[in-house]
Amino acid sequence: MIDIEKARADTPGCAKVVHLNNAGAALPPRVVIDTVRDHFDLESTIGGYEAKDRAAERLEGFYDSVAALLGARRDEIAYIENATRAWDMAFYGVPFQPGDRILTTTSEYVSNGIAFLQVARSRGVHVEVIPDDADGTIDLRVLEAELAKGGVRLVAINHVPTHNGLVSPAAEVGRLCRAAGVLYLLDACQSVGQIALDVDELGCDMLSATGRKFLRGPRGTGFLYVRRGVLDEIEPPFLDLHSASWTTPSTYEIRDSAVRFETWERYFAGQLGLGAAVDYALSIGVDAIEARVSELAAGLRSALEAKPGVTVHDRGAKRSGIVTFTMAGQNSRELMLRLREQGINVSATEPDQRFDTVSPESAVRASVHYYNTEDEVARLLEAL
Amino acid sequence: MIDIEKARADTPGCAKVVHLNNAGAALPPRVVIDTVRDHFDLESTIGGYEAKDRAAERLEGFYDSVAALLGARRDEIAYIENATRAWDMAFYGVPFQPGDRILTTTSEYVSNGIAFLQVARSRGVHVEVIPDDADGTIDLRVLEAELAKGGVRLVAINHVPTHNGLVSPAAEVGRLCRAAGVLYLLDACQSVGQIALDVDELGCDMLSATGRKFLRGPRGTGFLYVRRGVLDEIEPPFLDLHSASWTTPSTYEIRDSAVRFETWERYFAGQLGLGAAVDYALSIGVDAIEARVSELAAGLRSALEAKPGVTVHDRGAKRSGIVTFTMAGQNSRELMLRLREQGINVSATEPDQRFDTVSPESAVRASVHYYNTEDEVARLLEAL
Repeated sequence: MIDIEKARADTPGCAKVVHLNNAGAALPPRVVIDTVRDHFDLESTIGGYEAKDRAAERLEGFYDSVAALLGARRDEIAYIENATRAWDMAFYGVPFQPGDRILTTTSEYVSNGIAFLQVARSRGVHVEVIPDDADGTIDLRVLEAELAKGGVRLVAINHVPTHNGLVSPAAEVGRLCRAAGVLYLLDACQSVGQIALDVDELGCDMLSATGRKFLRGPRGTGFLYVRRGVLDEIEPPFLDLHSASWTTPSTYEIRDSAVRFETWERYFAGQLGLGAAVDYALSIGVDAIEARVSELAAGLRSALEAKPGVTVHDRGAKRSGIVTFTMAGQNSRELMLRLREQGINVSATEPDQRFDTVSPESAVRASVHYYNTEDEVARLLEAL
Repeated sequence: MIDIEKARADTPGCAKVVHLNNAGAALPPRVVIDTVRDHFDLESTIGGYEAKDRAAERLEGFYDSVAALLGARRDEIAYIENATRAWDMAFYGVPFQPGDRILTTTSEYVSNGIAFLQVARSRGVHVEVIPDDADGTIDLRVLEAELAKGGVRLVAINHVPTHNGLVSPAAEVGRLCRAAGVLYLLDACQSVGQIALDVDELGCDMLSATGRKFLRGPRGTGFLYVRRGVLDEIEPPFLDLHSASWTTPSTYEIRDSAVRFETWERYFAGQLGLGAAVDYALSIGVDAIEARVSELAAGLRSALEAKPGVTVHDRGAKRSGIVTFTMAGQNSRELMLRLREQGINVSATEPDQRFDTVSPESAVRASVHYYNTEDEVARLLEAL
């Protein structure tokens, strides 16, 4: 059981706002705030390089922390400044050939969808959207059948989409990809920190994540996992003096670990803060977090469903901490802004989910975390 | 004239260290520290998205500030998390064809050198190093002759290299590129903030820069300039929902300004801090900064040259605020660490400058800024 009162006391923001925008950026705990601030202050007073040298051990500890979170090896982890760039470094590094097929879901993230189309144009690959089954989850029988047809270079899906409450059956997709011998890239941007992740159980070859969402880390931080066994298949789209060494005037060697996807310069205070956020999540227990988030979200969902004029748009057999709804006659974005004026933070979903023909143009998104209370959920319901 | 005492009073780090590592990361002024800290605190207390909305106007002001610094238009500026990635977004976006030639100098930065070789391998381009003239500057007559031979897709040079004290004749190179109709990418990582830059005078099509060095901004910040007229030639190597829009399930549109090179998620506190650093530099005056840096560096250089056992390795007709030297019988990295113990920050140059056959494997690098004093320079000389 999580000590909610302690978790809230650890979180300065809890005293200021009803924060139900955890799938946007969660409120960080004090240890994350202090870690970032302390390193930034050190940089400002003794110099940025000098501060980095002093933090060297803790910067290395970041890889151990993330590896522990994912059940991975430390040399399979890269620090990358956000989930989009982490995903990019893996996705654009796949050696696509003309005619290769990419399989994805109707719930794919807008940025990833655009990246698919760019690569479709530049390298002649085919992007294919696997349809959903009756409850709105990717139809695994169709996926299996499409994999069996051959020619699939990559399966890339979102674990917890940003906009429809779904938890994709990531491990089942992983089993099908393994059986078919196909690369599998999992976008864990909204699942990391709210759902227990084990890369072996998930069966993914690459996994991208952000710090700012359910992990409660700083903005402008993220990471990428790349399985040891596929490392040499994925050439980093960019190289620098950290990801490779310059061996002779005409040769270079790419580093033999996931740091090949990193860049040397970075927001070091943020990296330390993200490490602290991961340690904090591990100390609370991700299983306990998952149970609590799921319970709070389920409660909010049923209360919303019971409310006249409210339509809940969440789908899938399994649901996340993200709850999406619309209110009759109300613009979702304006509703979000009015709630904010009352100290209640939610967000509005993006209108351009082009593979998704089911979700509304824009919905209100309330995303709960373990430090939220039943009272806070009630305050949202009341305000509506 | 710069009020040095005021500048030092504005800089908390000046009371702690003799900071001669400004080409690594300079000490930020208080306004930068406070700007970063305030926004980070706001994110932590009211939520990351909510804080961003509140800072919307100042985040937009960043583009005006950088445009003013460079004599550019605001829609020619992209915020990018570091100079390497800024350079990458431009460089890897050039539509190279097999057989295309890239011309560069012997002083090119290690990361850029490796990137050249990667593209040489993946796209069949030729990387050619223009030799230096007698004083160690790129030989402009050779450059002109090579441009005249045709087939050059890109000239990419470092304005102020990290490791040899040189200021490259960037504007002269620009005139030759314009005359030849060839794309010109200028790496201004070490020049921005110490040398007045005007993109029209420089004649560059693309310019990459970092925040942390002579601009005195936060680590993990940078920007890219791309001239309006070449924007459509350079396709961003990565796209996301910020740099492009998803118009139909099978089409997207890339944004019609330099923000096409950005990613949506970022270190917003850092962006605001970098904006504040640019404004601060402009308020002091970059011409005055350049004069002061040049004077301090020249003084240090001649004092070092007069010291028995010391060899200064700087080259070029025009010199920067970077002073490199070795001491007989001393390992440069160890010397750097011993100086650091005495509160004097310098750095040591990277050993893998593979196009450079003149510079030593490693040298001590002392890089001065306008807030340094003659006394601090004397303290370094004494310690040696």
